[in-house]
Amino acid sequence: MRKMLPGIGVIGTPASVRSYVPLLKSCGFQVVALWGRTKEEATGLSVELDIPFCAVKVDEILLNRNVDVVVISCPPHLQSAITIKALGIGKHVLCGTPAGPSQLDALKMVNAASYYPKLMSLVVFGLRFLPTISKLKQYIDKDYIGDISICEIRIHYEKKPKEHFDWMCDETMGGGVLNTIGSNIIDLVTHLTGQKAVRVHGMLKTYTKQTDKIKGIREITSDDFCSAQLELENGSCATLTINSHIHGPFNQEIMLVGSKGRLTIRGADLYGQKNDSLKEELLHFDPVNFKEEQRYGVSDKTRAEIPTPYLKGIIRLIESVKDAFEKEEERQSYCQDPVKVAANFEDSLYVQTVVDAIRKSNKSKEWIKIDILKEEPDPNPFLSTTIRKSTLTLH
Amino acid sequence: MRKMLPGIGVIGTPASVRSYVPLLKSCGFQVVALWGRTKEEATGLSVELDIPFCAVKVDEILLNRNVDVVVISCPPHLQSAITIKALGIGKHVLCGTPAGPSQLDALKMVNAASYYPKLMSLVVFGLRFLPTISKLKQYIDKDYIGDISICEIRIHYEKKPKEHFDWMCDETMGGGVLNTIGSNIIDLVTHLTGQKAVRVHGMLKTYTKQTDKIKGIREITSDDFCSAQLELENGSCATLTINSHIHGPFNQEIMLVGSKGRLTIRGADLYGQKNDSLKEELLHFDPVNFKEEQRYGVSDKTRAEIPTPYLKGIIRLIESVKDAFEKEEERQSYCQDPVKVAANFEDSLYVQTVVDAIRKSNKSKEWIKIDILKEEPDPNPFLSTTIRKSTLTLH
Repeated sequence: MRKMLPGIGVIGTPASVRSYVPLLKSCGFQVVALWGRTKEEATGLSVELDIPFCAVKVDEILLNRNVDVVVISCPPHLQSAITIKALGIGKHVLCGTPAGPSQLDALKMVNAASYYPKLMSLVVFGLRFLPTISKLKQYIDKDYIGDISICEIRIHYEKKPKEHFDWMCDETMGGGVLNTIGSNIIDLVTHLTGQKAVRVHGMLKTYTKQTDKIKGIREITSDDFCSAQLELENGSCATLTINSHIHGPFNQEIMLVGSKGRLTIRGADLYGQKNDSLKEELLHFDPVNFKEEQRYGVSDKTRAEIPTPYLKGIIRLIESVKDAFEKEEERQSYCQDPVKVAANFEDSLYVQTVVDAIRKSNKSKEWIKIDILKEEPDPNPFLSTTIRKSTLTLH
Repeated sequence: MRKMLPGIGVIGTPASVRSYVPLLKSCGFQVVALWGRTKEEATGLSVELDIPFCAVKVDEILLNRNVDVVVISCPPHLQSAITIKALGIGKHVLCGTPAGPSQLDALKMVNAASYYPKLMSLVVFGLRFLPTISKLKQYIDKDYIGDISICEIRIHYEKKPKEHFDWMCDETMGGGVLNTIGSNIIDLVTHLTGQKAVRVHGMLKTYTKQTDKIKGIREITSDDFCSAQLELENGSCATLTINSHIHGPFNQEIMLVGSKGRLTIRGADLYGQKNDSLKEELLHFDPVNFKEEQRYGVSDKTRAEIPTPYLKGIIRLIESVKDAFEKEEERQSYCQDPVKVAANFEDSLYVQTVVDAIRKSNKSKEWIKIDILKEEPDPNPFLSTTIRKSTLTLH
């Protein structure tokens, strides 16, 4: 008999939840509870998605005894607090991206996770699970391109105008192409090269400040164009361009150039060319599998909402989470192996640090050194200094 | 009867001269003299290209009474002095790119040209003459894309390893992808948008420091990878990536994104998409015309040396120079109209200023403001200050 998979509580009601819930269900998870900001939102979506319980108080979800795993998909500024609470109550956490919105939030999550090492605490950087990414890593390991010197990443897509002003429109709340899309790529660069950034630079632009729906005194402050450069530990570099003004299909190209050749991911396919070869070769072909997507309950809406490579990655990620739980007998236990490749909160802290630094660079017009926060800053440094001093004088 | 076109003296013996001379000849110009650094180089090439006179002293070319136009195609650090001398003697000048190597050299050329307004003084930024660029400008004028906000330019090609160490390997002598390729693009951005950069940033990398032929104590210092960002006068921006580690054909993409749509040049073809349209459309198709190229004496070697869009542009530029001279009766006179679109020394000074600023930004790790040099700096500021002071005390 197959193991009963853990019950899932979903936090948040963004459009993407309409995609995640069918996905989770078709993997065999039971989605048992949903949190929404208002009663209308929570009830409406829980009826639509056939979720038995809903609430407007987060605690009612976190304390629900049928909830074993909390899937967090709410605005970034709420994620950190909910994650920490969920872990404290003893629930596994799958945290959506972007996390944040700042480095400090990410650090608090790292600290919380380190208290509960037996609980799953993962970040949904789906691209890590994309088959073509695993293939690319294999080719790197086989020394197909030699020493990597340059990562060139270019993302072109069309950002649909928002209906309402929300966190996506506000930079300080975690909106913008750098945080929402770029964070995935920053994570990927380190995942693929094994190198972290030591210094970063960025130019962020907001060219669409108002739309038909968002006008008057409210203005969009989140970036819709981003050009960022990363210098990595071993002297290699990465350059990242995200342009959300390109009408047409989502277009993502990730190119790794090394001393012996290059590897390029276009969409979900992998191409490669060795320097001594005359032609680029197709190394991995991964077209949209409509049948498979149908099995996972992927609708046209989902396809419009989540770009194909990301969707494919998320499906694999959820499959891996399922495998992880299935490998252990007890309902709430899981095996680390299937989710070894997933990003944890420390990865997320690094990514958030880079994102923060790029934002700072955009303002200060200079390169910013990457300093990963190790301790939460003193909430009241004046008081503490005095106490410390008086403690010192006692001895 | 057709007018006798002016005689041309060529300064320099790089590989590209093997392409320029047949081109000039097939346009009807007489190439009457050639300067080379050594007797062997000068004699060898003049025999090969059937040029009646050659010399190792520049003056012998410049003073040659059959030479009306001097085409300069020598290392950047020699160009400025030769240009100034040529203009002083009363010869028209067509100066190859990159000019430079520094802003001061470019300023000296501007000053020289302003003394002799009747002499032609052009810089060979061939892309301005590429038919697809003219087409693109027409579409901009027709308001196809509305207000331009982003210029995204990406150039991928394979830099063949050099046989010998020369100026191309040395950053201070004007080598590197930024100066050799990027200068054309910096010029083009302003040519197309009508906007100059106010502030620039750049990351330059030299990943190939030694080759099979260049090793030992000598090292290549010129950049082989460049990522640069420009902020333009009206708040729009440009981002430029030049990667010379991509084996395969030369690949150049220039994309202009505006409020109403985008225009993209791939190679020599123009594509466009309006925001309300579902598909990109081909607006101008300009394949390689082998028959035409044959007429201009373009060999396979030329094709390997000069990328197609640049070659096509240079052919048009030389045709325009011919037209300019043909329109006036006197052999040495020319009409401004056909070469109105060409870059002059002031354009070159601006480009050199931006290139210098990007290099400085790469070293200082911050954005650099564009300050176009207007006066040559005092060669001996200490002495002059003293003199100025003593002059002051006299009154």
